[in-house]
Amino acid sequence: MAQNMGEDGRFGLDRRTKLLGPVRLDSGVQFAPVEFAYETYGELNGDKSNAILICHALTGDQYVASTHPRTGKPGWWTRLVGEGKPVDPARHCIICINVLGSCMGSSGPASFDPGTGEPYAMDFPVITIADMVRAQAILLDHLGIERLACVIGGSMGGMQALTWASLFPDRVQSAIVIASTARHSAQNIAFHEVGRQAIMADPNWQGGNYYGSVDQPDAGLAVARMAAHITYLSEEGLTQKFGRQLQDRDTKTFGFDADFQVESYLRHQGLSFVERFDANSYLYITRAMDYYDLAEEHGGVLAKAFSGTRTRFCLVSFDSDWLYPTIESKRVVQALNAAGAAASFVELSSPFGHDAFLLEAPEMNRIIDGFLKAGGL
Amino acid sequence: MAQNMGEDGRFGLDRRTKLLGPVRLDSGVQFAPVEFAYETYGELNGDKSNAILICHALTGDQYVASTHPRTGKPGWWTRLVGEGKPVDPARHCIICINVLGSCMGSSGPASFDPGTGEPYAMDFPVITIADMVRAQAILLDHLGIERLACVIGGSMGGMQALTWASLFPDRVQSAIVIASTARHSAQNIAFHEVGRQAIMADPNWQGGNYYGSVDQPDAGLAVARMAAHITYLSEEGLTQKFGRQLQDRDTKTFGFDADFQVESYLRHQGLSFVERFDANSYLYITRAMDYYDLAEEHGGVLAKAFSGTRTRFCLVSFDSDWLYPTIESKRVVQALNAAGAAASFVELSSPFGHDAFLLEAPEMNRIIDGFLKAGGL
Repeated sequence: MAQNMGEDGRFGLDRRTKLLGPVRLDSGVQFAPVEFAYETYGELNGDKSNAILICHALTGDQYVASTHPRTGKPGWWTRLVGEGKPVDPARHCIICINVLGSCMGSSGPASFDPGTGEPYAMDFPVITIADMVRAQAILLDHLGIERLACVIGGSMGGMQALTWASLFPDRVQSAIVIASTARHSAQNIAFHEVGRQAIMADPNWQGGNYYGSVDQPDAGLAVARMAAHITYLSEEGLTQKFGRQLQDRDTKTFGFDADFQVESYLRHQGLSFVERFDANSYLYITRAMDYYDLAEEHGGVLAKAFSGTRTRFCLVSFDSDWLYPTIESKRVVQALNAAGAAASFVELSSPFGHDAFLLEAPEMNRIIDGFLKAGGL
Repeated sequence: MAQNMGEDGRFGLDRRTKLLGPVRLDSGVQFAPVEFAYETYGELNGDKSNAILICHALTGDQYVASTHPRTGKPGWWTRLVGEGKPVDPARHCIICINVLGSCMGSSGPASFDPGTGEPYAMDFPVITIADMVRAQAILLDHLGIERLACVIGGSMGGMQALTWASLFPDRVQSAIVIASTARHSAQNIAFHEVGRQAIMADPNWQGGNYYGSVDQPDAGLAVARMAAHITYLSEEGLTQKFGRQLQDRDTKTFGFDADFQVESYLRHQGLSFVERFDANSYLYITRAMDYYDLAEEHGGVLAKAFSGTRTRFCLVSFDSDWLYPTIESKRVVQALNAAGAAASFVELSSPFGHDAFLLEAPEMNRIIDGFLKAGGL
């Protein structure tokens, strides 16, 4: 792998590969072949002990520290990953893989089904977080990375990090789990269901067969994104940022245009999202998250998901995150303690809700830096 | 009024009247004529000192203690209003008026515009909570009720109760404000905007001109209701009621049907709502709520909205209500105290979130009963 990395001077490299697989899915399906789109930064060292896997969130992608090809925006976690940052390509071999089911190059509902030559659409199999992780393991096998020095993820990325440690305890030296949970709550499921219903209620969704059609389910996907976006922000953060401020004018219009700044902001979030994301992928990935309950296969006892683990864990939550509140991180830490695992946990203070992990968070960076260095990274 | 009441033995009476008005709206429009649909229970006493106005919430109606004509369900607040209850037709003359902008008989977007002979649809003027209250005052004038012994409301009903006391201090002897607020927050506005966008994204909405059409914006309205419904329940309540329980089966389907009970419940909430509510009314009433900020006209100083008031106030909040959390009630109480008003406040404990005020709440009933009796009611 090292000899293929960085030769053309590009940062990230926009790597693609198709592997035979199959991925054994939780549904029983043997999914094959499997396409992977991923980014790498830095070189694998001689004893292959510096590999760090970064797992992305629901609407994230592999462009953790490189420019997004569609939006032209910088990577989504450049605050954490980059030269001189806690996760540093000068020292670490960093891999970020577009998750199974997504739409940035890895196999998902928009991918072509080799059996039909058409996009899978809703014939794509329903997947789980564990399926995403098993697929990633196949790619790492291919890359010759047997052992991960660390798996790092926020939100759904944290679910993957926990699942990595649970499914492949011998391959994960340490895991950093940020603003995440070991199970989706009824309220989490409810919000996702609203989003799915918004998409499926859009006539342009066409039962999922909108690929190649002029009519795209943009309206439904935008509404789904708007609803979800509220859950990423705190009430306090929204009040600080927008309050009841009116949009570009002094008085109310007594109409249904975006009068308040918060309305305009939300509409923009919805509209810009549909430019970069696939509606069917949104259905599949939210489903995977709703199915997520790490304790389920262990009789509801979360500690058993980590029995005998030697992985070191670091958990971080944010006090204003009401999507995956601190209590969920504490549940994980208690389970890890019960399993005899080394686990550190910090709740950070932030007004920005769930989104805090993607924003400027110097304390989070210090914690991650300290944790990685304590592990010789 | 007394002689017209209860003659046919029906409880409630399904009263209708059309008044010349006009209602002077905050938008500057003089709206006329004004249709009113309302229910009354009990008789106005000789000195007209026992009139209690009950104000309903966003999707509520005048059928506070009588059977809903479309759903056949009992009144929405029979736990509080009825024989032997704190608000008792044996002692009180109880009035509940369908709010301006709604769809159960009072003037709203589905009403016929006498100027065109067609439904107003989106030509209905944008209204405010104060407009609703001013319309109610016109009806009470017509009924010969000069002074209200009490105005009672929960949620948007509480906003009306506060506005009654602010706009017509001499007409309101006491006010009971439950699970409410004196202003809509950025988060409140955001959730309403998602609902409005869901409705307006539905092609069957047809710019609001769907009346008489086969195609109704049911899908959009159902999604709006689902999103709103999550805000009426607490995370704790959803977990207690549904948790991650699967729907009528033991294992996941690995599909997009309602696998979890909470999904099935939400879908039912959405579907049953469209049977009884008008999508345009939902747009107009959510807009009125978003525009609501009682302090706005008083330079942002809420106390000034109540200066010189002699109304007695009783406020109740619920600890798990995150739509209008306790802090909002406390803000109102502080303003009332600053204005020298008599105000009592209690935060009740309940796992049921905002919806708690509509559910079995013996403590709430005791508080209301005590407050009314202390006022000679």
